[in-house]
Amino acid sequence: MVNETQHTCSASSSSKSDGGSSSGSESSKDSSRCSTPVLDADRHERLREKMRRRQDSGDKWFSLEFFPPRTANAAVNLISRFDRMGAGGPLFIDVTWHPAGDPGSDKETSSMIIANTAVNYCGLETILHMTCCNQSKDDITGHLQKAKRLGLKNIMALRGDPAGEEWEEEVDGFNYAVDLVKHIRNEFDDYFDICVAGYPKGHPEAESYEADLRHLKEKVFAGADFIITQLFFRSKTFLKFMKDCQAIGITCPIIPGIFPIQGYHSLRQLVKLSKLEVPQEIKDVIEPIKDNDAAIRNYGVELAVSMCRELLDSGMVHGLHFYTLNREVATTEVLKRLGIWKEDPRRPLPWAVSAHPKRRVEDVRPIFWASRPKSYIYRTQEWDDFPNGRWGNSSSPAFGELKDYYLFYLKSKSPREELLKMWGEELTGEESVFEVFTCYITGEPNKNGHKVTCMPWNDDPLATETNLLKEQLEKVNRRGILTINSQPNINGKPSTDPIVGWGPSGGYVFQKAYLEFFTSSEIVTALLKVLKKYELRVNYHIVNVKGQNITNAPDLQPNAVTWGIFPGREIIQPTVVDPVSFLSWKDEAFALWIEQWAKLYEEESPSRMIIQYIHDNYYLVNLVDNDFPLENCLWQVVDDTFELLN
Amino acid sequence: MVNETQHTCSASSSSKSDGGSSSGSESSKDSSRCSTPVLDADRHERLREKMRRRQDSGDKWFSLEFFPPRTANAAVNLISRFDRMGAGGPLFIDVTWHPAGDPGSDKETSSMIIANTAVNYCGLETILHMTCCNQSKDDITGHLQKAKRLGLKNIMALRGDPAGEEWEEEVDGFNYAVDLVKHIRNEFDDYFDICVAGYPKGHPEAESYEADLRHLKEKVFAGADFIITQLFFRSKTFLKFMKDCQAIGITCPIIPGIFPIQGYHSLRQLVKLSKLEVPQEIKDVIEPIKDNDAAIRNYGVELAVSMCRELLDSGMVHGLHFYTLNREVATTEVLKRLGIWKEDPRRPLPWAVSAHPKRRVEDVRPIFWASRPKSYIYRTQEWDDFPNGRWGNSSSPAFGELKDYYLFYLKSKSPREELLKMWGEELTGEESVFEVFTCYITGEPNKNGHKVTCMPWNDDPLATETNLLKEQLEKVNRRGILTINSQPNINGKPSTDPIVGWGPSGGYVFQKAYLEFFTSSEIVTALLKVLKKYELRVNYHIVNVKGQNITNAPDLQPNAVTWGIFPGREIIQPTVVDPVSFLSWKDEAFALWIEQWAKLYEEESPSRMIIQYIHDNYYLVNLVDNDFPLENCLWQVVDDTFELLN
Repeated sequence: MVNETQHTCSASSSSKSDGGSSSGSESSKDSSRCSTPVLDADRHERLREKMRRRQDSGDKWFSLEFFPPRTANAAVNLISRFDRMGAGGPLFIDVTWHPAGDPGSDKETSSMIIANTAVNYCGLETILHMTCCNQSKDDITGHLQKAKRLGLKNIMALRGDPAGEEWEEEVDGFNYAVDLVKHIRNEFDDYFDICVAGYPKGHPEAESYEADLRHLKEKVFAGADFIITQLFFRSKTFLKFMKDCQAIGITCPIIPGIFPIQGYHSLRQLVKLSKLEVPQEIKDVIEPIKDNDAAIRNYGVELAVSMCRELLDSGMVHGLHFYTLNREVATTEVLKRLGIWKEDPRRPLPWAVSAHPKRRVEDVRPIFWASRPKSYIYRTQEWDDFPNGRWGNSSSPAFGELKDYYLFYLKSKSPREELLKMWGEELTGEESVFEVFTCYITGEPNKNGHKVTCMPWNDDPLATETNLLKEQLEKVNRRGILTINSQPNINGKPSTDPIVGWGPSGGYVFQKAYLEFFTSSEIVTALLKVLKKYELRVNYHIVNVKGQNITNAPDLQPNAVTWGIFPGREIIQPTVVDPVSFLSWKDEAFALWIEQWAKLYEEESPSRMIIQYIHDNYYLVNLVDNDFPLENCLWQVVDDTFELLN
Repeated sequence: MVNETQHTCSASSSSKSDGGSSSGSESSKDSSRCSTPVLDADRHERLREKMRRRQDSGDKWFSLEFFPPRTANAAVNLISRFDRMGAGGPLFIDVTWHPAGDPGSDKETSSMIIANTAVNYCGLETILHMTCCNQSKDDITGHLQKAKRLGLKNIMALRGDPAGEEWEEEVDGFNYAVDLVKHIRNEFDDYFDICVAGYPKGHPEAESYEADLRHLKEKVFAGADFIITQLFFRSKTFLKFMKDCQAIGITCPIIPGIFPIQGYHSLRQLVKLSKLEVPQEIKDVIEPIKDNDAAIRNYGVELAVSMCRELLDSGMVHGLHFYTLNREVATTEVLKRLGIWKEDPRRPLPWAVSAHPKRRVEDVRPIFWASRPKSYIYRTQEWDDFPNGRWGNSSSPAFGELKDYYLFYLKSKSPREELLKMWGEELTGEESVFEVFTCYITGEPNKNGHKVTCMPWNDDPLATETNLLKEQLEKVNRRGILTINSQPNINGKPSTDPIVGWGPSGGYVFQKAYLEFFTSSEIVTALLKVLKKYELRVNYHIVNVKGQNITNAPDLQPNAVTWGIFPGREIIQPTVVDPVSFLSWKDEAFALWIEQWAKLYEEESPSRMIIQYIHDNYYLVNLVDNDFPLENCLWQVVDDTFELLN
């Protein structure tokens, strides 16, 4: 993905006279250098530029359309889907807009907030749909301002369905999508990338196919940057449409909208809404198997794959837009079979970068939120400026308060019943808590036969990297060192390493060993004695829920624990152990015991009291082994501690 | 030197209840964390704090007094002396003030400018003397404001000698040093550390010894931070004085002024000025050998060493102040014999840190000025803010113009005749220039038997580190790759390494191999062809005097070429190859051919035309091998280039 722009001027034979680009010392005064190391040009481009770059490089892409969910639970699921489907590398996603559903509100389920979540928390380039019909100029401007404020950069400008049959054009009102395009360009200049809809068969309400093409041209000439089409059933429909567009002077990208048939009813409903006609050959296949969902889906995938292949093979199509209907299986299958689903593209940084324009320069975070990146983004959303290069530049980061709850903030993705099966219907003592931690690490089922696939501090299974430490982690968790975060030491692995690599190729990545855990005050007492022996080598922070804090960190300085060295660039240090933000993390880490775990049980129940006891009495500890070229000494520290206790 | 403040609270047994220092999450909002990594507490302390810390740690120290020079040449010599004697680790130096010599002016030889040079260019903690007698309040305030503006933080407040015999106290005037102390505290609050003079035998004009002690107490109570004494000849004189001071309530540090006798005449003159009496036992030794300078100096050293030992052994003395009379040998000898001369104290950064308060946070510089740090400081003196952690944060550094000349700016320390001997009375062609470069590298005498100990780009002999590359450098210089800067690659050596180490102990330092040279356009043409093979591995900048610039640096990004990883800290990257400032360096590097070398010869002379030809036609090239863990490939690049040419 990384595309290094090379300012090379070949001067092989002409270098004597005028072989290089002339640039006098004046250039030192007005250089256009970025203020942050550019690890990934992608992060700084707007959508239309990304699209153009992909077209130029011949690198095929895809995008995904979703509609806003109806309930908060569905929203949690949709966000997980964003993460999973985001892993395949879509160029963007888009979120539809339904005027009846209060789409611009602050509700967790509104189009606005879902798009905000996709951009800011999932790091996805996102287009927010917006309709204009039957809405006042002020309302529309308000929505656009809000979108801008939230970091959204792309709008799909639509007319929307007129309310009722007796709809008439309003003078000076928003009657057509073109009015919205003009309004956006008038009020927001070039801030937004604007997408408009194209109808390969002509809009059902248009006087004619030709008249509809002229409308489309108007929208483009009013300022739209690209076109996404309505779904269609035959590739030749799209290719003819595209040629017709080009013939009347539409030169912007036109992206075919692909609808993999996923079920009989959804197809019927979509066809009804879009007023399209399903070709007879498709009907002939579907009708006989209409009650067999799997069969229909398989057929839909086949059909989509072959149509997409035709489109891509035409040489006229560079990207494909998928109407997912918020479902994963069919679209993912089509993309994988087309070979454009790119699992695990090179990571620009060891953590997922947010797509908010303000946060694109962000390149350092405390390690504590490694498994809870959305919580970190949420708690720092009010920051004006993101630690740009070095953590220390941000003088006094104030974290959002714990009282601000949010979809993914202190809530697990899993329902209560499932959590109880994993974490125990009934706890009998601290040991049964140790057992839960141990099962999470090992992946073995607990004594009731249930696998522990998430923990309050980690909503996902163990990271691949953590697997490197599995054996040691199992041992210490069994004995009450309840680990919630760790990383091995790395002494200069290639940046392309499949497990620990990140950043552009040709670089080297490094890590200091890190271990973070909850443990009892008895163990802390022994640990502190042992740590004296490691005073110069190991940095520690030990804190309880009341904030009693024991550390040997010099001068509240952050300790860089992940860094990378790349050709032609400054050092990047994306992860630090920061003493100041550790105290904000501590509040969250302790609260998760109660909010996610204790509250599963009745008040006053023994199980709840066990968790409450741990919350009240345990310490949160983190350890860094500074001597990254040597063998990780943190396991020795823990062994020494247990030995001292015996 | 590095002193890590540890915020450790021992919680060995009491950790359960209240073992740690309580610090709630509020502390995240008002932390007192520095905005830059503290590698060396010393850099952020004021003089009186340093003094106290040394006293507490029992670490004995010394300081050095100099007077301003009379001529610009003497100033150049004095600055070299500051560098050489600064290497021994004085806690501070001080510069005397002679009202007759226009001490507050902008002349290269004024007290003000010499003190400025010591602080800003030599990185020495400096006290500027200032007298007040016969001066207006406005003059004095003006001097103090100027001192503050230049980054001076310490003033020695003196009365100075009254002009003429008929001096009388002025009402409301500055009659005594105490008036100046009060004035400084009134006008500048606590900005300056103030030193005052103490007279172990009483001031010659005081009514009595006791009266003089009372005057001293007044000065201290008016706001002086410490006392430096007039010279004396017997340790018991000082120790009695110190006890007497303490008896009347003077508790601040009192530093004995040591005067190593260096010659008969200087002793006589000083004695006359200070109205002191030389003890008979000293006279008895000196008179018979008064014409033997070496014998007197040896005796003076003996005497000073034994008196200093008595002072230090008394347990009452922590630091010694030396009246150097701007000479080096005797004082250095005394300090070495006392064991408090600390050659090569641990370097906080790979380059010498400036002592200006504004620059103390500076922790990254372009590599180009590695051998010309004073020039770099001079050309960046107008910057408001120093690249703080990462070079990229400083958006568009504008360098000072080349037209601004200065003592050490484009001028060599060596006189013309010496330079001609080293660089050739008469050049016969480009080859004779290659020969000069080669002799500088090898340390062998040139064909006329003279060693080449400096070059226009490097006023000192080869750095120890460069010696690691000596053999390779010799080979390439012989063939017209005229090297002016280089460093080997280093893959994680201990920060305590005597050659390449820097920063606090327990860390690891790294370097990318770097090579910078002038060479002909023929070689550049071949080099560029060879570099294509190394495209991903080697970054290059190739520029001629006209500014024609050929580079493969991505997006004008700086390339970190020296960095260090330390326990409990962020990554430090003190040296970068910065494409933007390279163009400013280029102007300076090319100008040095003309200013230092060509101008040694007559206009129109063949020798001058050879240098002028090189200046006009050669390219300045720098190469970085990004693959620091592998063997340096830059020699292979050069070999390949020569092979291509053959």
